Amino acid sequence: MSIKSKTLLSHLVFFLVCFQDSVHGRLLSSTAQKPNPDDAAATARWLVSRNFWGVLNTISSDLDATPFGNVVSFSDGLPDKGTGIPYFYLTTLDPTARYALKDPRSSFTVSEYPLGTCGKTDPENPTCAKITLSGKLKLVYAKSEEAEFARSALFAKHAEMKDWPLDHNFQVFKLEIESIFLIDWFGGPKPLTVEQYLHPKL
Amino acid sequence: MSIKSKTLLSHLVFFLVCFQDSVHGRLLSSTAQKPNPDDAAATARWLVSRNFWGVLNTISSDLDATPFGNVVSFSDGLPDKGTGIPYFYLTTLDPTARYALKDPRSSFTVSEYPLGTCGKTDPENPTCAKITLSGKLKLVYAKSEEAEFARSALFAKHAEMKDWPLDHNFQVFKLEIESIFLIDWFGGPKPLTVEQYLHPKL
Repeated sequence: MSIKSKTLLSHLVFFLVCFQDSVHGRLLSSTAQKPNPDDAAATARWLVSRNFWGVLNTISSDLDATPFGNVVSFSDGLPDKGTGIPYFYLTTLDPTARYALKDPRSSFTVSEYPLGTCGKTDPENPTCAKITLSGKLKLVYAKSEEAEFARSALFAKHAEMKDWPLDHNFQVFKLEIESIFLIDWFGGPKPLTVEQYLHPKL
Repeated sequence: MSIKSKTLLSHLVFFLVCFQDSVHGRLLSSTAQKPNPDDAAATARWLVSRNFWGVLNTISSDLDATPFGNVVSFSDGLPDKGTGIPYFYLTTLDPTARYALKDPRSSFTVSEYPLGTCGKTDPENPTCAKITLSGKLKLVYAKSEEAEFARSALFAKHAEMKDWPLDHNFQVFKLEIESIFLIDWFGGPKPLTVEQYLHPKL
């Protein structure tokens, strides 16, 4: 390969890594083992990467603005390569997508309990970790690179999605995270900024 | 036993059954087996009775009124004797109780997936049932019969709650249900009124 080609290639790789890093959050290989609860960013990313379903909350437009939770599948990236950003595959036949298109304020909640690592500890015990990501639930433009990435991420963890009916018009949504509520030990929520969450110190 | 005593006893039993039935909803022995999805009331009650944790959604007062979901434990009655009304054990050290005391609009979401009966079906597939109960999250007066019942119901399913710290001031909350969103098959949410849910035809 010529010097010119190597330079071009290295620039391309650099661009892709930076694009990935800045748009999606640092890729993390998630470990099977739960991180130390003192490491809030690692614990938060582990929870989001290891789970594959949770409850997505939006503001109802037909129930007096009551907050409406809904069970949804999600993915934050390929298995063991989480980005920290949850992507969803939603149809407007279901209320959550309809509500979000009118008012994007939303949160997404997952628990450590389904991972099996809480053992006999109660799901509400603070040492059984839980996280709620709050922000805006946004439609991702279907022909964007991000949507393409999201679909790969979703289909890798939810194979049947590939065969869901075309006339249901499933579309990719993402949560743009603005604040994080993480409980993984006694003493209240762990301080954790979105920046720390997206770009944990390795 | 004299006729007078028998009459008194039967009145007392009748009163207790009616009180239970009207305040809490008909007691149902929940079966291990999932009911036929055509039977919306039975399926809804089975989901609520067999689960012991879910996500409780309230309106945040410090996050721009973003709907805030939180993992909580719950109980709707003694094991296999569900009432249909979810009771919670919450502390105002946690945001959910604080939010609800300012604005009681709330919903509670559980999934069939943690019960293990969805098998390999995706959690977002409509045949893996899910339910969201919407209404008002209310504090139950600590010295009422209802709170006493709720504590028995909660402690029966969440034994460690008995030993949670007194200075956290855990209190009983309940969701007063106003509408029900149940998905257990293709074709959209099952029509199901609160009355049908609380008093299913046996």
